[in-house]
Amino acid sequence: MSDDFFSNRVSVQQVEESNELAPKFDNEGLIPVITMDSKTSDILMLGYQNAEALSLSIKTGFAHYWSRSRKCLWKKGDTSGLYQRIDEILIDDDQDAVLMKVSVDGTGASCHVGYKSCFYRKIKHDKNKNTTSLKFVEKSKTFDPNEVYGDVPNPTKL
Amino acid sequence: MSDDFFSNRVSVQQVEESNELAPKFDNEGLIPVITMDSKTSDILMLGYQNAEALSLSIKTGFAHYWSRSRKCLWKKGDTSGLYQRIDEILIDDDQDAVLMKVSVDGTGASCHVGYKSCFYRKIKHDKNKNTTSLKFVEKSKTFDPNEVYGDVPNPTKL
Repeated sequence: MSDDFFSNRVSVQQVEESNELAPKFDNEGLIPVITMDSKTSDILMLGYQNAEALSLSIKTGFAHYWSRSRKCLWKKGDTSGLYQRIDEILIDDDQDAVLMKVSVDGTGASCHVGYKSCFYRKIKHDKNKNTTSLKFVEKSKTFDPNEVYGDVPNPTKL
Repeated sequence: MSDDFFSNRVSVQQVEESNELAPKFDNEGLIPVITMDSKTSDILMLGYQNAEALSLSIKTGFAHYWSRSRKCLWKKGDTSGLYQRIDEILIDDDQDAVLMKVSVDGTGASCHVGYKSCFYRKIKHDKNKNTTSLKFVEKSKTFDPNEVYGDVPNPTKL
């Protein structure tokens, strides 16, 4: 599917300076994807795409990912209704990372725990004790994950 | 070094809902890091940290990464002078991705190719031809990489 859609990587010059899309997928066939809310510039999540998920995202305008925990292609929103509509997709210098700017349906949330962003905690450091802790930066959940996801297994793995 | 600094991962509840920092490093001991310009909310780069790089970033307030191409700890700015001063570090729901908000010294650039952001190209899709191409969204480089990096090998790998 992606053979015609992506260029082969032939030189550093091509990868960094040309207008050819030549993404680098890792040993597991995946590329990391930063997902940003177009309006607020909040980072919503960091996901992964295989070639099919990236192609589908480009072609359909809806964010698709590869779920590493469920090991399947994943159109974000199919369970929750919170689809991510893509406004822009960027790629980095060596083309091994993607940035998608999106508008999210419904409540605008993208985190399976119920928060708007997956990045709902910041790291605090106590220099004197040389310890760390987390502080919640989102005050409350935007939805009840039990209601939205029901019996779907939690994707978080230890 | 990090044994006292990070918590062990003991439950999904702890990882997602507690105030304990329990990052998940992958099979290569790395965690991906999104770096954002605090003022503009531009995404500057996607890097990787091992436990030492994350600890040093938290302790010193300067962004440290693990260079996968050079296979070494890397204090961003040591060659270019463009140090990244950390304003805030966030971690995501399952604690396998980091978001650092930074203020960059000098020209404010973070990309070794010379652009401000590594994400200086967006993906264009021609639906009729079913092809893709890249369009530059940054008009010009902020510095000449040859002057700044000289003989340092280009980190981009095919």
